[in-house]
Amino acid sequence: MSSSNGNPTRRNVLRGALAAGGAVMTAGAARAAGDPAITEIQTWNQALGDGVDARPYGTPSEFEAHVKRRNVEWLTADPVSSVNFTPLHELDGIITPNGLCFERHHAGIAEVDPAKHRLMINGLVDTPLVFTMQDILRFPRENRVYFLECAANSGMEWRGSQLNGCQFTHGMIHNVMYTGVPLRLLLEEAGVKTSGKWVMPEGADASAMTRSIPMEKALDDCLVAFKMNGEALRPEQGYPLRLVVPGWEGNMWVKWLRRLEVGDQPWHHREETSKYTDLLADGQARRFTWEMDAKSVITNPSPQAPILHGAGHTVLSGLAWSGRGTIPRVDVTLDGGNSWHAARMSGPSFEKSLHRFYYEFDWDGSPLLLQSRAHDSTGYVQPTKDQLREVRGVNSIYHNNGIQTWHVSESGVAENVEIS
Amino acid sequence: MSSSNGNPTRRNVLRGALAAGGAVMTAGAARAAGDPAITEIQTWNQALGDGVDARPYGTPSEFEAHVKRRNVEWLTADPVSSVNFTPLHELDGIITPNGLCFERHHAGIAEVDPAKHRLMINGLVDTPLVFTMQDILRFPRENRVYFLECAANSGMEWRGSQLNGCQFTHGMIHNVMYTGVPLRLLLEEAGVKTSGKWVMPEGADASAMTRSIPMEKALDDCLVAFKMNGEALRPEQGYPLRLVVPGWEGNMWVKWLRRLEVGDQPWHHREETSKYTDLLADGQARRFTWEMDAKSVITNPSPQAPILHGAGHTVLSGLAWSGRGTIPRVDVTLDGGNSWHAARMSGPSFEKSLHRFYYEFDWDGSPLLLQSRAHDSTGYVQPTKDQLREVRGVNSIYHNNGIQTWHVSESGVAENVEIS
Repeated sequence: MSSSNGNPTRRNVLRGALAAGGAVMTAGAARAAGDPAITEIQTWNQALGDGVDARPYGTPSEFEAHVKRRNVEWLTADPVSSVNFTPLHELDGIITPNGLCFERHHAGIAEVDPAKHRLMINGLVDTPLVFTMQDILRFPRENRVYFLECAANSGMEWRGSQLNGCQFTHGMIHNVMYTGVPLRLLLEEAGVKTSGKWVMPEGADASAMTRSIPMEKALDDCLVAFKMNGEALRPEQGYPLRLVVPGWEGNMWVKWLRRLEVGDQPWHHREETSKYTDLLADGQARRFTWEMDAKSVITNPSPQAPILHGAGHTVLSGLAWSGRGTIPRVDVTLDGGNSWHAARMSGPSFEKSLHRFYYEFDWDGSPLLLQSRAHDSTGYVQPTKDQLREVRGVNSIYHNNGIQTWHVSESGVAENVEIS
Repeated sequence: MSSSNGNPTRRNVLRGALAAGGAVMTAGAARAAGDPAITEIQTWNQALGDGVDARPYGTPSEFEAHVKRRNVEWLTADPVSSVNFTPLHELDGIITPNGLCFERHHAGIAEVDPAKHRLMINGLVDTPLVFTMQDILRFPRENRVYFLECAANSGMEWRGSQLNGCQFTHGMIHNVMYTGVPLRLLLEEAGVKTSGKWVMPEGADASAMTRSIPMEKALDDCLVAFKMNGEALRPEQGYPLRLVVPGWEGNMWVKWLRRLEVGDQPWHHREETSKYTDLLADGQARRFTWEMDAKSVITNPSPQAPILHGAGHTVLSGLAWSGRGTIPRVDVTLDGGNSWHAARMSGPSFEKSLHRFYYEFDWDGSPLLLQSRAHDSTGYVQPTKDQLREVRGVNSIYHNNGIQTWHVSESGVAENVEIS
């Protein structure tokens, strides 16, 4: 790795490269005004475009058709119980737009009529209750931004790099501003008996998803949400009602939420026994590993997003998050960990939310080994994959928060690699 | 107005109403579990839904088809130079989803190919420059949430209430997290001459929109943005590049941005002389009234969103904003201003961004006269419409930030009214 990949001054980002006669020119960098080719190829100001009656609900530009969720056909037996990954390499900031939010179903997307939907609270409560959607809207609401990450995100990386792109290695995640009623208020309305120590949310789709949630978490920061990023939940995100379990694995965020049962012990259902447990090397399984550990990934450059402009001023970008708090600091290395640099954080810092980081540097055109390392507000530092494997073995597919490495070649092409 | 519309305790929101045998029951409020009708009408768990291969870019539920932008046909001569309003009464939180962001065009929606798009900086600069989109991506970016409000928002209210719905009276606004390069960095790259005191952004659509912006603002918080809420700008919002001028009237946020000219004085173009000036009663016109004053509106209940549940516990919701800072406080009245109550703010508080407020109360079923009043972080308090008219007359269509009134009848129907 070259030691001349330095952090530039902010001024003259491109002119410096021009003055040096660098590779930037060939990639179409800033040039003197008056290029005659420009007016010849621009035709969009020569006619009137669509009026305001054309798009009551807007959609992306046709030039953005490549920006889409993608699934991996060989990963699951059937698309109705599978995963559609967020294209992290095409996004910026911290909000995931609703149309691109990672989706995971166990029996396909239920198409629920909100007028007919009901939420029941039963079990160890003073008064079992059934709520309509209109009832839910009469409780005080809150607005909060949270990431949702599947416990299996990066799961294919346990045994070595297998998928070439952060959409596939890290794209089982999204970050949304939710509007919802604190779960605590609904439980208080029914009146939880003293013996009630656990809550079991249940979904209204054909899979009837269930999980066990300790009462302490249910009364803390969980939301029964009906809006995401301002509008109604999308069908694939549980329309009209989903449970939000901040910082905890996505499988617990039950969609199409129809029932909350209060009990005195966990239910040990399928999704917390045969699935969503972490089989260790000695045959023991870790259970109830709900909290998502601090993690980060460089989204640009990355295998689906090569460096196109050649050497010179380069913007590296990425995401970091923790199920336990905020991300005050991310380190970035260009040389596989020989030297680390503090990334620049930009954008809001919310608890249990994605954080955006950048690192600007002058690339000398030599190969790079890129990594990022998140520090969360508890002091926890993201481990290497090898450190994780030492403790957990390689049997699990869940809770892999190890440091990711991208190799970038002299031509700017990035690929998923492992280094020791 | 009845004095019995009180602020309830949080506990037993619906059960209190049930115990009292109130009108809540008839609106379908929380009831004892076991209603046999429920399982009969729910069919969405009896079959598998769409798989993950069905929706690479997701769209709202078919049950949300009424949630859309709307235009007012008589308002303008042609839909290519018109307005499409945000359905504020259907949204919650502070983020406006991209598909529902208010749009205003002067020559329709330009369909710009980002590979062919260029941004030129010329005029009083050391080196005129032309940037490709790839060049822009090599400058340091920032992520910030801002509202965009058209100066004509609520313009039809100057001479009395005319449009029945907050979508139409206040829907020329949206609130988005932008990713963009500080305008300051691009101007520094070209090198602004000492004589350069103004910047003129120009759009690439057929209207070639231009405005004059003082250099002080250009170097302060303006962004040249390419992402909104995480993904590429939408075509109707200036894809692939728009100017963000935080807190200032929307007309200055030039879309399809193709040129920034630096000059020593304002240009006095059409959109800052015949339009976007405020004609006073004495025939003088206020000019360069860029900053948007503090304002608020109750979005629910409102004429398009009546109270459906009858008397009992009711959630009132609304939005407040200021072009000068944050909104630390909103007051709400149920009785046309006889008594005011502090609203509950919920969600992030950013500078020059929408803020969400709520007021929960037990409605006794008597008619209501609802108003909200915003206080901004400079100490400014939103005025009444009559206070504004005293100072500005009724000739203008711009910069009406007066307090809005909704009358709610005993049946829960709301309408736009004026009170003195």
